[in-house]
Amino acid sequence: MKNGLSAISIPMLDEEMGRQVKGHVDSLTVPQGSLGRLEEWIIELAKMTGEAFPDISKPGVIVFAADHGITEEGVSAYPKEVTEQMALNFLNDGAAINVLSRAIDAYLDIVDIGIDADIEAPGLTSRKVRNGTRNFYKEEAMTKEEVNQALDIGYDRAEKMIARGVNCLILGEMGIGNTTSSTAIISIISGKSVESLVGQGTGLKSEGILHKRRIIEEAISLRNPNPDDPINILMNIGGFEIAGMAGAMLAAANNRIPILVDGFITTTAAVLANLISGRAADYMFVGHRSAEPGHRAAIELLGKEPILDLGMRIGEGTGAALSYPILKAATLVIKEMATFESAGVSNK
Amino acid sequence: MKNGLSAISIPMLDEEMGRQVKGHVDSLTVPQGSLGRLEEWIIELAKMTGEAFPDISKPGVIVFAADHGITEEGVSAYPKEVTEQMALNFLNDGAAINVLSRAIDAYLDIVDIGIDADIEAPGLTSRKVRNGTRNFYKEEAMTKEEVNQALDIGYDRAEKMIARGVNCLILGEMGIGNTTSSTAIISIISGKSVESLVGQGTGLKSEGILHKRRIIEEAISLRNPNPDDPINILMNIGGFEIAGMAGAMLAAANNRIPILVDGFITTTAAVLANLISGRAADYMFVGHRSAEPGHRAAIELLGKEPILDLGMRIGEGTGAALSYPILKAATLVIKEMATFESAGVSNK
Repeated sequence: MKNGLSAISIPMLDEEMGRQVKGHVDSLTVPQGSLGRLEEWIIELAKMTGEAFPDISKPGVIVFAADHGITEEGVSAYPKEVTEQMALNFLNDGAAINVLSRAIDAYLDIVDIGIDADIEAPGLTSRKVRNGTRNFYKEEAMTKEEVNQALDIGYDRAEKMIARGVNCLILGEMGIGNTTSSTAIISIISGKSVESLVGQGTGLKSEGILHKRRIIEEAISLRNPNPDDPINILMNIGGFEIAGMAGAMLAAANNRIPILVDGFITTTAAVLANLISGRAADYMFVGHRSAEPGHRAAIELLGKEPILDLGMRIGEGTGAALSYPILKAATLVIKEMATFESAGVSNK
Repeated sequence: MKNGLSAISIPMLDEEMGRQVKGHVDSLTVPQGSLGRLEEWIIELAKMTGEAFPDISKPGVIVFAADHGITEEGVSAYPKEVTEQMALNFLNDGAAINVLSRAIDAYLDIVDIGIDADIEAPGLTSRKVRNGTRNFYKEEAMTKEEVNQALDIGYDRAEKMIARGVNCLILGEMGIGNTTSSTAIISIISGKSVESLVGQGTGLKSEGILHKRRIIEEAISLRNPNPDDPINILMNIGGFEIAGMAGAMLAAANNRIPILVDGFITTTAAVLANLISGRAADYMFVGHRSAEPGHRAAIELLGKEPILDLGMRIGEGTGAALSYPILKAATLVIKEMATFESAGVSNK
């Protein structure tokens, strides 16, 4: 590893600021406890940022796109070419994440970190490690060098966002085959059966899901990665976009920038980031609960409760972008509301 | 009743437009079904408005404030004066609903429809029916004339909002004692026990909740309203803000304007509006699930599933305002996204 990632030292949460802000919340002109989870998020944001009035007004979205060699095994409802086509759709402003990024006025960075096609398109951040991972049913998906390169690229992209003034980082991904890789990773780390985690991905029918399950089960026993070693897991399974997101999350946590995690793939990256550096999850919110069954186990590993639960399974960062206005509203409540004293309202 | 309310004829949903929009959703560049509940809302909005690309970009919030005679029985954690004090807080931009209305760029109308105090304040819409309802533990809360007057005021305020260009109506309320009235109303309509519905309101402890429950149980048997007659229920129990919200919802439904319902009190008004005119609920979304236990039963009566579930219990329209960006995002997805064909993305 190069740059910041080798010297990473994620700061501890500011517990004292959390206590101070809790006191202020209790003085706001609403019945005590009536803010529900908004109160919890207000306090978490204060601990993360060390600020009484955290500012997350400038969100940034980074979408990492890459291919997965495992698609050779017929594990996805869509052909591999869709990764490239959707990357071009992102650049043409036509995808769900474009609409939702615009709705929250976010910077959007589309990173080719390993698409299996030669793309030169205006607006694309070209940081390809390789044309897709190797097929992990047959061999290791990535070399150790490639894992570290992908982590570094993610770290670097997040630092560029932060340098532009972004104070809330949303991660997203595109990669046909990546629910297969994520299911394998979460099964390895959680010890839960592939059967209990595997899902339809972009739209498999029951027979396809059964096939996907068998491929993952056999691949895990063939690769046999060390469940305590996130780098070894990434080498064995992949993929580039997952490592990229993990690196970006480490950069955000290292800079005390709140992270909004999206669905199953992003949460898998979050779990890996937290294995790489144990305090990374302290800086994370999970934006939504995906309909993909493995997401529940991934969220549990992270110890989080999602903001939204809308049965979505798009990826791209869409669920996280959709939850952003809720989190931002929490910061406005603490900053702009009157207290019982200032408003002359009788307390109990 | 005067004005529009006497001649109300809520239009039927545009089912054909719903079918057309469903077809378009399936062509968008996301896996089929992956939009989850966003897809459901996109189609419901199309049916409500009769538009393929519904526009809800201009929200309006009406907060009706009124007092309840039942507070004489010691059913609330806060003194009755807080209704007036909070109305002034609304006018001074210090309450949660001010912050959240501003966050979504909504018009905000604060209506004194029955506060038990003489308030003259800049920005306040003074449409007081009476200085609070009568104590329904001892007598009928409102006369039939007062019920109709409050419904008309609500109807009129909503029509004024619509005339200003509002295309999504959010209702909210302030009224110390109004969880007591709402619990009584939902018990009467649902047939569920008061014990299963009663909650802490603004912050009662267990002994206070037990007292509140007994007062409601006795008052229901003393008043004995007709559970099938919403006007009779309002006469017996109150309150002015509940009737006002019901009237406003009827105006919105009559104009095919989507309604965002807030928590327990607002949903109680929605249930009454739907009893007055059976199609009113067709135009409603429930913004959030409140922590107040009776809200679950009220939502069931309405046949809805809330957008958010954050354990909030503020009232004022806050949960509905917080959910608005999610609903708005659904309208942007259908309007701005590329299709598989237009983007050249391979379908399954």
